[in-house]
Amino acid sequence: MIYKSFVRLLAAAALVCGCAGPVPVSNVDAVMDNILSRKSVRSYTDQKLTEEQINTLLRAAMAAPSGSNVQPWSFVVLTDPSEYETIFAGNFNMDKFKQSAAVFVLCADTTVTRTPRGGGEPVVQPNGTWRDDLGAATENLLLAAESLGLGAVWTASYPYKDRYMPPKKALGLPDTVIPYSIVPVGYPAGDEQPKDKWDPARIHYGRW
Amino acid sequence: MIYKSFVRLLAAAALVCGCAGPVPVSNVDAVMDNILSRKSVRSYTDQKLTEEQINTLLRAAMAAPSGSNVQPWSFVVLTDPSEYETIFAGNFNMDKFKQSAAVFVLCADTTVTRTPRGGGEPVVQPNGTWRDDLGAATENLLLAAESLGLGAVWTASYPYKDRYMPPKKALGLPDTVIPYSIVPVGYPAGDEQPKDKWDPARIHYGRW
Repeated sequence: MIYKSFVRLLAAAALVCGCAGPVPVSNVDAVMDNILSRKSVRSYTDQKLTEEQINTLLRAAMAAPSGSNVQPWSFVVLTDPSEYETIFAGNFNMDKFKQSAAVFVLCADTTVTRTPRGGGEPVVQPNGTWRDDLGAATENLLLAAESLGLGAVWTASYPYKDRYMPPKKALGLPDTVIPYSIVPVGYPAGDEQPKDKWDPARIHYGRW
Repeated sequence: MIYKSFVRLLAAAALVCGCAGPVPVSNVDAVMDNILSRKSVRSYTDQKLTEEQINTLLRAAMAAPSGSNVQPWSFVVLTDPSEYETIFAGNFNMDKFKQSAAVFVLCADTTVTRTPRGGGEPVVQPNGTWRDDLGAATENLLLAAESLGLGAVWTASYPYKDRYMPPKKALGLPDTVIPYSIVPVGYPAGDEQPKDKWDPARIHYGRW
């Protein structure tokens, strides 16, 4: 009798506290918190990244949209600080970035190979939107880093020739491939805070 | 006696099923699910967006990183389908987009006004990274839309003059401001699914 009521009460209690099924997660709250928490982190502890963390960052980048779904991106991942110097040549923040656990070089193929609509041999053409696609991929990587509690910063490579030519040569990129952005990642050493950039004055309804 | 054991058992059950404190949310899971679930949605029901939803999308876009934190973006929001036609002139998908509840035109100021380091009068200069900043802002808006259960798609405006000049004129944008991307948003009418774009062949370690 006592045992039966024990079982019934446990079941009732479980129902009451909503543990019968999966706990509902408010996706928009977690996603917006992450977007609003993302910040530029330029100092890092000496803690390394796991292979799983590195793949999570790359998976996020590859999930970006791209014009005509061309996915013009490739990624060079560096984890040996002795290899960082040439990558950041021409970047005045280089010394800070040498402390990062990993450096992601997001590369873009500036061309796309298409088969003419009428058929025939594939033709190599310029890709008009590779820069936009890589911008979205870089942001996805930064957002994934924030969600992992990692610190990262988007350092511009393209369109600055003095910044993108040294890594292009050092990494042995193909002729049509350009290092678009360079993102050092590591565990934050400082306490950088996100900026509140909400500005209703930037919003226009109907027309400017 | 029965009542006391009832209370003790409820307490024990609550502890067992982890309902004593707030339920822990794994931010990385929610964030990666959002990034991997984002898809291009091109058909919409006639349900409108709330002002809160529109502001959430704009807040996400404004949280993007930008070169030297210039924040070169402005946004024109359209919710009257009769105003969509000129915006999408030159886009072959126009008829579909006319069904969307709102159209976000993400605009970029291609110039930046800086005070010379030596001091003196502010000088208007070209901004080298506005296109990259707007790419990140567009991706943030798309991710926020996905988290709200909304459907959206990035339609390229820049760099195609036949696409960005009609909305530039129709919306009365200043000379130095360009409509970078045009994003229709609404409640999905179909069941578009995200693409799995994970491709380890795109990853290089150390060098290409």
